[in-house]
Amino acid sequence: MGFEPRTPDFAARVADSFARQSFMTLLGARLAHIAPGEVDIETPARDDLCQQHGFFHAGVTASIADSAAGYAAYSLFSAESSVLTTEFKINLLAPAAGEVLIARGRVVKPGRTLTIARADVYGVQDGVEVHVATALYTMMQMAGMSDQAIAKTAEGG
Amino acid sequence: MGFEPRTPDFAARVADSFARQSFMTLLGARLAHIAPGEVDIETPARDDLCQQHGFFHAGVTASIADSAAGYAAYSLFSAESSVLTTEFKINLLAPAAGEVLIARGRVVKPGRTLTIARADVYGVQDGVEVHVATALYTMMQMAGMSDQAIAKTAEGG
Amino acid sequence: MGFEPRTPDFAARVADSFARQSFMTLLGARLAHIAPGEVDIETPARDDLCQQHGFFHAGVTASIADSAAGYAAYSLFSAESSVLTTEFKINLLAPAAGEVLIARGRVVKPGRTLTIARADVYGVQDGVEVHVATALYTMMQMAGMSDQAIAKTAEGG
Amino acid sequence: MGFEPRTPDFAARVADSFARQSFMTLLGARLAHIAPGEVDIETPARDDLCQQHGFFHAGVTASIADSAAGYAAYSLFSAESSVLTTEFKINLLAPAAGEVLIARGRVVKPGRTLTIARADVYGVQDGVEVHVATALYTMMQMAGMSDQAIAKTAEGG
Repeated sequence: MGFEPRTPDFAARVADSFARQSFMTLLGARLAHIAPGEVDIETPARDDLCQQHGFFHAGVTASIADSAAGYAAYSLFSAESSVLTTEFKINLLAPAAGEVLIARGRVVKPGRTLTIARADVYGVQDGVEVHVATALYTMMQMAGMSDQAIAKTAEGG
Repeated sequence: MGFEPRTPDFAARVADSFARQSFMTLLGARLAHIAPGEVDIETPARDDLCQQHGFFHAGVTASIADSAAGYAAYSLFSAESSVLTTEFKINLLAPAAGEVLIARGRVVKPGRTLTIARADVYGVQDGVEVHVATALYTMMQMAGMSDQAIAKTAEGG
Repeated sequence: MGFEPRTPDFAARVADSFARQSFMTLLGARLAHIAPGEVDIETPARDDLCQQHGFFHAGVTASIADSAAGYAAYSLFSAESSVLTTEFKINLLAPAAGEVLIARGRVVKPGRTLTIARADVYGVQDGVEVHVATALYTMMQMAGMSDQAIAKTAEGG
Repeated sequence: MGFEPRTPDFAARVADSFARQSFMTLLGARLAHIAPGEVDIETPARDDLCQQHGFFHAGVTASIADSAAGYAAYSLFSAESSVLTTEFKINLLAPAAGEVLIARGRVVKPGRTLTIARADVYGVQDGVEVHVATALYTMMQMAGMSDQAIAKTAEGG
């Protein structure tokens, strides 16, 4: 959509913060695309990511969608800031099946305090994408404190 | 709220289905309470369940809340049926910290096709509960097919 | 998106049902566009549609967005059926100002029972559109009973 | 829940702001209850508030619920501030019928910038209440500018 990042190293900042999300590592998720206001995250199918019918658990879908939307927002934030999901809503459109699940986070409207983003999740099987979820997010910019500084505080507490 | 279960073995059916959610096992989550229209799920803090600041990832919060609300609904379903989350919305009220994260799923309004449920999630530290999330769900009863039968179909496909 | 309507007279059915929504008349709202899976509804600014700061009330935005999304879904339904909003979520992106407020409802995923739709609302001033809201809907097809038949039942009750 | 208002005249401030919501006047809505963090709004049934089946339009339900939740939040704000709905999600549980529709807005978690609130809407017939909707809101405190000052600015613009 042609958003202007406020920092030249936005991609490195996203990658750095993502690397500190241990839960993404547990899911086997990886960054697949970073652009201003756009982040894709994908995770391959695995036996321990399922709900009771053998599909990806809605929580897995929601997890990578949340990180994708959050980092899409974060890519537009200023250097000394951090991102917080304040709320989201997700519609599950179809059973989440496929070899890979990919979440595409996109900023809808950036803002000083609140940034609205959406995410669409697709199950990919043999190169064919099926739209399995669509979601809307309110992300908050926590200004005046870098991502790493907050992490340190959290560890200390 | 005094809901009447349609099957005497509702608790066993919930426990049986929950045991087949491999993702709950990955999270270290366990059933903490089952009653008609009520299911609690809790998961202890762990280094690999975190977001970038060291708190529980919103995806973990959303995952146990989704299963808690889904099984709260499922506890009221008929024997030959299964449950599907069609959508949910979650507000994250505070950083999800604590030794244990507990999600309390409760049915708001049961229905033949759609059941509305909510879930509230609390971070527990030294026995003190902090309200970290509140969520609303639309759950769908898939009638005429038991939970195990769908799982078999999914494996076959 | 190239949806196929199940009835040739889908536009007349939408217009007929819309005309029976007395609340749309109260708002001064009118149908601005009907296509398979797509309905736009617009309403001109008026002194009695405001919140406390003089902008369109969020309820007006939500009302025309709901009808636009609902009729977008209804345009794809079978003849003997009716539409019901089961839930929606709306993000208000900017103060709703302008001479006209226009809501564009679009089907995201049609289904036999549930249809997922979205709506985007714009404030129009001097021909310039400002994106003021984005929303997601779960619409339900009530099969086996036409719109008029339900209305008759409701009047009788 | 025992919230402490920050201004002694919170009820007067709510009533004053509500009186400036011309859309509430159009709906025939009135304040039925004001307490710290709690506001009820009710509106009597009327022929021009209906959807196509003769029930209250979802937009009416959403409108009074939004104002009830917004003023529940506003009742806890500081004197020089205003309230803005940033987003909400509503589940429609049953057809909205009855002589009166009443929305009960309650603060879930107050905050300096964001306040989370919920609203439950009931249709009242012969003194019997039917739960017709439940909703969750993110309200924003716009600090440093009173409600009237913003209204003046909006008029000027």
